[in-house]
Amino acid sequence: LTSRLPAVGTTIFTTMSALAQQHGAVNLGQGFPDFDGDPRLMQAVKDALDAGHNQYPPMAGVPALREAIAAKIAALHGRACDPGLEITITAGATQAILTAVLALVHPGDEVIVLDPCYDSYEPSILLAGARAVHVALTPGSFRPDFAAIAAAITPRTRAILVNTPHNPTGTVWTEAEMQQLAALLAPTDILVLADEVYEHMVYDGATHQSIARHPALAERGVLISSFGKTYHVTGWKVGFVAAPAALMAEFRKVHQFNVFTVNTPMQHALAAFMADAAPYLELPAFYQRKRDRFRAGLAGTGLALLPCEGTYFQCVSYAGLAPDIAALPEAAFCEWLTREVGVAAIPLSAFYPDGRDQQFARLCFAKRDETLERALARLRQHL
Amino acid sequence: LTSRLPAVGTTIFTTMSALAQQHGAVNLGQGFPDFDGDPRLMQAVKDALDAGHNQYPPMAGVPALREAIAAKIAALHGRACDPGLEITITAGATQAILTAVLALVHPGDEVIVLDPCYDSYEPSILLAGARAVHVALTPGSFRPDFAAIAAAITPRTRAILVNTPHNPTGTVWTEAEMQQLAALLAPTDILVLADEVYEHMVYDGATHQSIARHPALAERGVLISSFGKTYHVTGWKVGFVAAPAALMAEFRKVHQFNVFTVNTPMQHALAAFMADAAPYLELPAFYQRKRDRFRAGLAGTGLALLPCEGTYFQCVSYAGLAPDIAALPEAAFCEWLTREVGVAAIPLSAFYPDGRDQQFARLCFAKRDETLERALARLRQHL
Ligand SMILES: CSCCC(=O)C(=O)O
Ligand SMILES: CSCCC(=O)C(=O)O
Repeated sequence: LTSRLPAVGTTIFTTMSALAQQHGAVNLGQGFPDFDGDPRLMQAVKDALDAGHNQYPPMAGVPALREAIAAKIAALHGRACDPGLEITITAGATQAILTAVLALVHPGDEVIVLDPCYDSYEPSILLAGARAVHVALTPGSFRPDFAAIAAAITPRTRAILVNTPHNPTGTVWTEAEMQQLAALLAPTDILVLADEVYEHMVYDGATHQSIARHPALAERGVLISSFGKTYHVTGWKVGFVAAPAALMAEFRKVHQFNVFTVNTPMQHALAAFMADAAPYLELPAFYQRKRDRFRAGLAGTGLALLPCEGTYFQCVSYAGLAPDIAALPEAAFCEWLTREVGVAAIPLSAFYPDGRDQQFARLCFAKRDETLERALARLRQHL
Repeated sequence: LTSRLPAVGTTIFTTMSALAQQHGAVNLGQGFPDFDGDPRLMQAVKDALDAGHNQYPPMAGVPALREAIAAKIAALHGRACDPGLEITITAGATQAILTAVLALVHPGDEVIVLDPCYDSYEPSILLAGARAVHVALTPGSFRPDFAAIAAAITPRTRAILVNTPHNPTGTVWTEAEMQQLAALLAPTDILVLADEVYEHMVYDGATHQSIARHPALAERGVLISSFGKTYHVTGWKVGFVAAPAALMAEFRKVHQFNVFTVNTPMQHALAAFMADAAPYLELPAFYQRKRDRFRAGLAGTGLALLPCEGTYFQCVSYAGLAPDIAALPEAAFCEWLTREVGVAAIPLSAFYPDGRDQQFARLCFAKRDETLERALARLRQHL
């Protein structure tokens, strides 16, 4: 049996969640909230079940949900999308990424990814028969390095995968950076695959720079996001894609033969919930408060804080801890932290193709205040 | 923009459902029930929501649901599966098929498909960079033609896609046919991808021949099925795969980077429902009654009945209708039937790579008795 993905094991998120459970650790590893979605959203699912919305929805998704997404993109980013031809509901953002890559990238093509990055990007590219070209974000700042990106472009470059707000480092691209990307791509026909799943977790008054705000990027771009992250229901596995009609037509060709369509009652519930309110408007303040409390609490632990402009992840350096601990590779540090301290974290090395060690770990603060306090107490006690 | 799937349009199911809606036709096209799942199953979703099961489940699926599947396979087919290593929950059977093909078939490989077949098979194979080798089921009987299959095998043959009970023709493979397949494959290392989504719709006392009943096939096989078809909730998009651990390890590598995991509340609900009872035991009698009534009703319409041993599809020939109607290609006949008679059907030509015309159409009888009566009345009136 020859593997299609010989370098791939079980994802770090699965591994660390299992280890956390085994050791009764507070799980700040895998990115998911330990609180529930809005009760109105739960009621909306019950209503959808009672209304008998249990059979196949249209392939591209329930029309009312696509309309709600189009309304949101218009309201927040000033871009008009046709919900009929330019929006598709997906079984989460990961499925959207694989589907977009399979639909738009050909065998032998190259796709630029910016390291560190989410661990599904490269396998998706490999499954399309293409090659991932790795460009590092600027060491230290984790900001895009446009000279390095420019140097990586070849005649085979088909697409660049961009992620802002950025998992795992929490950087948020600026308007100027988006403009630089647009200028760099203008003379090419390179597509932009934009992973924007943390779109509503942006702090200190900054604005999420969706490709939908930048027509030069939107017209060559696939915007990918997630209802699970936005509405605290990661287990529902519902996301969406917005793209110009010509790109979307290709996306749907693959989508219909991948999942065909997406859970009907959840789609109806999300549509009803979004029609009622614009619940995402409260999210930046909600998570900024958690970020600020968590950062303040971490100050007393010996872990050094990296910046966090967005996402629900806080990265820390453990270089300042006792020498035997500071000497551990990131994976070993996170395992030690889970087993001995009782707090699960994700090594940043898992987001690099070469697994490089920088004494960094990622902590998820999408948790109840009590959970964060419990984790902080353990960190203060043991570190 | 060069398409990865240039020959592919919108699936026939989407097209005909849209046409049915537009013309107020009784939709016997796309395969889904027009009645709801069991109220206990609906209540179980509500319970799962109330219990807060809204975040990521384990990547391979909720353990209790995997255990329920293992128990079912043991009870019905006498095969022991390890729910930890040999069962994975998928976002429907279509996702399982694409994932299995991407995980197990390499670029340049060949995969044998038996025509007519479900329209996702060939695109899945193309997306893996492989080639579909088409072998016709025996014309007339639609039974497997083992001489033709044997003749199609080459050193590049990586897998054969098998579907019983068979969509669209309703044939059910016999024990002897499964044994012939096993004998044919014994000297090879060809894998079997078994689409068994209609496993519980088998009539006249016949037994569904799962690969799980045939160790020689199970050990080289991926069994794919669907909760949506079995429990009348096609819109939930939950299915499962059972395969030996070595094959499943490869399947999961791709699955985790495709959908990562599957809707949590629905998984908990299905697990609770299956723990309570073996509700699939009632299905053969439930659908056989519908089949028998529908066939009896069709007798007076001028449409000739093909055999229906399983599935919820009844194929008919319109060769005996008025010459101008009988002369229509299948796609045109089904469009005419939808527009003018008010009954939507699926042309069998959609299941053939060459779109061949045989004056056949497929009708779905997974409908309430009133719906079937309404369709029959329209057919009797117009044909
Ligand atoms: C799909 S599991 C991983 C969740 C996540 O996005 C993360 O933790 O980075
Ligand atoms: C996934 S839509 C098609 C449903 C089905 O299996 C069929 O009608 O054949």
